Amino acid sequence: MENTTLLLNIIWTMLAAILVYFMQAGFAMVETGFTRAKNAGNICMKNMMDFVLGSLFYFILGFPLMFGSNVAGLFGSSGFFDPYSLADGSGLFNGLPIAVFMIFQTVFCATSATIVSGAMAERTKFASYLIYSAAISVVIYPITGHWIWGGGWLADMGFHDFAGSTAVHMVGGICALVGAKIVGPRIGKYNEDGTANAIPGHNIPLGVLGVFILWFCWFGFNCGSTTSATTTLGNIAMTTNLAAAASTLTTLLFTWLRYGKPDVSMTLNGSLAGLVAVTAGCDVVTPYESIIIGVIAGLAVVLAIEFIDKKAKIDDPVGAVGVHGFCGLLGTLLTGIFGEDCNFLTQLVGVASVLVYTAVAAFIIFTLLKKTIGLRVSDQEQLDGLDLHEHGMTAYSGFRIDK
Amino acid sequence: MENTTLLLNIIWTMLAAILVYFMQAGFAMVETGFTRAKNAGNICMKNMMDFVLGSLFYFILGFPLMFGSNVAGLFGSSGFFDPYSLADGSGLFNGLPIAVFMIFQTVFCATSATIVSGAMAERTKFASYLIYSAAISVVIYPITGHWIWGGGWLADMGFHDFAGSTAVHMVGGICALVGAKIVGPRIGKYNEDGTANAIPGHNIPLGVLGVFILWFCWFGFNCGSTTSATTTLGNIAMTTNLAAAASTLTTLLFTWLRYGKPDVSMTLNGSLAGLVAVTAGCDVVTPYESIIIGVIAGLAVVLAIEFIDKKAKIDDPVGAVGVHGFCGLLGTLLTGIFGEDCNFLTQLVGVASVLVYTAVAAFIIFTLLKKTIGLRVSDQEQLDGLDLHEHGMTAYSGFRIDK
Amino acid sequence: MENTTLLLNIIWTMLAAILVYFMQAGFAMVETGFTRAKNAGNICMKNMMDFVLGSLFYFILGFPLMFGSNVAGLFGSSGFFDPYSLADGSGLFNGLPIAVFMIFQTVFCATSATIVSGAMAERTKFASYLIYSAAISVVIYPITGHWIWGGGWLADMGFHDFAGSTAVHMVGGICALVGAKIVGPRIGKYNEDGTANAIPGHNIPLGVLGVFILWFCWFGFNCGSTTSATTTLGNIAMTTNLAAAASTLTTLLFTWLRYGKPDVSMTLNGSLAGLVAVTAGCDVVTPYESIIIGVIAGLAVVLAIEFIDKKAKIDDPVGAVGVHGFCGLLGTLLTGIFGEDCNFLTQLVGVASVLVYTAVAAFIIFTLLKKTIGLRVSDQEQLDGLDLHEHGMTAYSGFRIDK
Repeated sequence: MENTTLLLNIIWTMLAAILVYFMQAGFAMVETGFTRAKNAGNICMKNMMDFVLGSLFYFILGFPLMFGSNVAGLFGSSGFFDPYSLADGSGLFNGLPIAVFMIFQTVFCATSATIVSGAMAERTKFASYLIYSAAISVVIYPITGHWIWGGGWLADMGFHDFAGSTAVHMVGGICALVGAKIVGPRIGKYNEDGTANAIPGHNIPLGVLGVFILWFCWFGFNCGSTTSATTTLGNIAMTTNLAAAASTLTTLLFTWLRYGKPDVSMTLNGSLAGLVAVTAGCDVVTPYESIIIGVIAGLAVVLAIEFIDKKAKIDDPVGAVGVHGFCGLLGTLLTGIFGEDCNFLTQLVGVASVLVYTAVAAFIIFTLLKKTIGLRVSDQEQLDGLDLHEHGMTAYSGFRIDK
Repeated sequence: MENTTLLLNIIWTMLAAILVYFMQAGFAMVETGFTRAKNAGNICMKNMMDFVLGSLFYFILGFPLMFGSNVAGLFGSSGFFDPYSLADGSGLFNGLPIAVFMIFQTVFCATSATIVSGAMAERTKFASYLIYSAAISVVIYPITGHWIWGGGWLADMGFHDFAGSTAVHMVGGICALVGAKIVGPRIGKYNEDGTANAIPGHNIPLGVLGVFILWFCWFGFNCGSTTSATTTLGNIAMTTNLAAAASTLTTLLFTWLRYGKPDVSMTLNGSLAGLVAVTAGCDVVTPYESIIIGVIAGLAVVLAIEFIDKKAKIDDPVGAVGVHGFCGLLGTLLTGIFGEDCNFLTQLVGVASVLVYTAVAAFIIFTLLKKTIGLRVSDQEQLDGLDLHEHGMTAYSGFRIDK
Repeated sequence: MENTTLLLNIIWTMLAAILVYFMQAGFAMVETGFTRAKNAGNICMKNMMDFVLGSLFYFILGFPLMFGSNVAGLFGSSGFFDPYSLADGSGLFNGLPIAVFMIFQTVFCATSATIVSGAMAERTKFASYLIYSAAISVVIYPITGHWIWGGGWLADMGFHDFAGSTAVHMVGGICALVGAKIVGPRIGKYNEDGTANAIPGHNIPLGVLGVFILWFCWFGFNCGSTTSATTTLGNIAMTTNLAAAASTLTTLLFTWLRYGKPDVSMTLNGSLAGLVAVTAGCDVVTPYESIIIGVIAGLAVVLAIEFIDKKAKIDDPVGAVGVHGFCGLLGTLLTGIFGEDCNFLTQLVGVASVLVYTAVAAFIIFTLLKKTIGLRVSDQEQLDGLDLHEHGMTAYSGFRIDK
């Protein structure tokens, strides 16, 4: 029996890991579809490379920092360059073979890293992006991940972030915020009087496909975070799905009222907002509570994206900061209100500490990059498109396209 | 052991539910690819919103109507707004936790609803579509679903519709037929002499991707309809795949003979035709019988789409009525001929009664919508594209496109 | 317990088969994205039809040739037209019900067949492609497959090709090489002085999506080749993922050094190169060994594609020969070096014999086709595009495209 249970848990966790891998495709399509054709190859490559670098660096350094032997609740300290040597002494691996647990954690790490590329799209140097991307997989995600999931101090406090509203999405969203602020807005985004211009994406169907892919994979993300086959998997799938449905509908109706027409790209961000927000508490809320979380997220994401765009004047081409950063934060706090046996203050402490650490670390990394090799392409490169200058190619050969 | 079997069934059913969710992406891509660029954002949103509304309304009303306590074999009558209260007294849930069974049923319901958007594409008001879409998830699909799968009168009679050729596809296809008839054809579809013009789709590779996605997910749809891990899963996968392969090849060759060239979009509809047709009997036919079903469906879909287009003069931009309506009906009847222990007359009674109920209910809904808020956008909106007027956007910003 | 283990193995193998099916979508998108818009419908149809024909012919003839009763280690000889009659006497099916094993083998066969369409894209007659495609599923793949996986002479020797670097990828790649050579280059590919022109693909984001889909499905391909639920699944996923990450990064850096810019399409081929190369030994190498295999494949694929393009002057529009043919061969040999309990000489004998058989058989098939109905479309058809002449359609109706 022991063995059968283990194999059931392995199969379920493997399925989840495979689905979460595929979120890379979802992010790539969302980010490509919602930006301009002249940068499509570049944004695709950034999405590919953050997974590649994340996979390699998380293996040698990130996983040991996150799950190695605990130092004062702050970070792991063993298993560097040899992560298979880490035994499951602390029970963190749920009894899974380490490689099963590691592939699952690897795809989670890469999800966090990939969030940034959208917010910094269309003006960030490719080389700098590569370095940043490796850095998040080493010095940001695994540290806060250790606090939350690696037996660190937040785990000890009872901080509840089931599948990663904070650990994955808010961390990615905060990095995105800092990066987008430091790299500065795209040419043409802001007028001299400070008003913002919309820069429409070039391939909305591809973006929509990306959202469908993400929703699909989110069932692996949330239901798979049990890392075991349980009778509660259906409950998690239901809360995940209802929150996303409620947020999508809310955003649709809210934009309809606010702008006079139901807004397509904002509604798609509404879908993601609900998914992000319910991720922390999907295992401890009821279906109706998940709908409430979805409604709140669906309203909040509109206001957050507007605020970032128009008030804070930070140019985030795909709304990643509002979706992942703000709704990740929001969902984690709402878990403190709605979640069974969850404590709001603990959630607040968790969110605040992760936010501060992530913001500071990201600020240091991006500032260092800016002062050394530079973060931003030249204006000419930006006007001509990054595909041409960074890669010597065009993404839609033969099509007549106005830049 | 009991527990292990339950967990095996849960894992399998969850995997199937996740795959069936992803059919939404398949339908969205097929419907977008086979219609015009100026309506691409609108059709994507319709596909997103029917899933969203389906998820919410099926939870509060649809599931209880389908699986609540049976009233005279006609509908369920308990669990409204509290579907988790429904216990598996009747054994309909196969022993699964209710949330597992419910997420699986939710994605099936949404599949039926999403079929309609394609047939009514490019001229239906967005607001009306939303209302219709909620209605199908409440007053159409769950009622006939109760008859077939919820312990209703057709289930009692021995009607065999394993994964839903009738319950899902024909129901969706009949709604599509009624809707497309009532909303009327697109401007430019029919000439004054009554002849039909082809209006080609704008992104065939996206449509092809949609068909691949649907075929992929159909393995979850059909094999998952066991809602348990069994030794017969491979047989169901084989009949599903062989039927689809046979229908695709048949349509390819038939169009080659009939039109002089192998027709791409018709062949893709041929793939779906075989999948739809084998869905009712995939568990009770042999591989060779599934090939025969595929061949019949592959021929029938061409004739059905031609008939609807040219004789009935109903404008169905993507062929949804022929594929889902007609081949769903056909496949259910063929199950009465080929299926082990199936009865043709029972199948005929089932198909006929579901057809009549669905047609009448859909007629009432669409007529009410037409007489109140209206079903059809203005001619100017249609000419300019629904993206512009309904959503204030364009799906392919920067590309030069002729409308 | 017996039954539970069987059901676990069935579920895992079914999941893997479903994922491997979806590789068809990946190949279709890669091949479509990296070729020109005027041929997009045609290449999609070729990808669809090779799966269709493979499914049908593998059922009636291919599977029996591969797994029927063994004749001198060379081919199977029973079960023709009735493959379900084959019992698992030899233990080749791992105790799985034959239909489960068969759907898994079917999708593997179709993967091999679909590799060819990319290399012969943009100038091969549709009818000839159909015939060739059926042929590979009958007289090529099942024979060498029998040698390796069907209890044939290479299996007896201890040849190690876990998930098919040779059996699937090299076989497909060699057929691609022979086909591309015999059909000749596209008009405009080579100048009079013998230098090669690049012919850029028309939809890079779609190609990138294809690569993400393939990587996603490769977890099913490699981890599923256990055909059972085991504790080693995570190890296989890790080696697969690390090899692919390492090869992608290597190709990126290598092209950056070599061409001055990181090359997008070559880097994507680098991802596939690593996946192909690690496929043979993913179960018997360590994570670091898989990284080494990835690095070697990432370098080799660049040189191989350059050699084929510039020295051998064989026009392979998507680089399929370099990726699948050469890296399949390479990965199988590297398994002889790195793989636990693997023998380099045995690997060399296996690769060489499969290469020779495949090349000869493919040469005969393509030559017969060339001499009879012809392999190549007319120059006018090629200039206008195969979509127009072969199918009477255009893939992007409304878009302004330069041919």
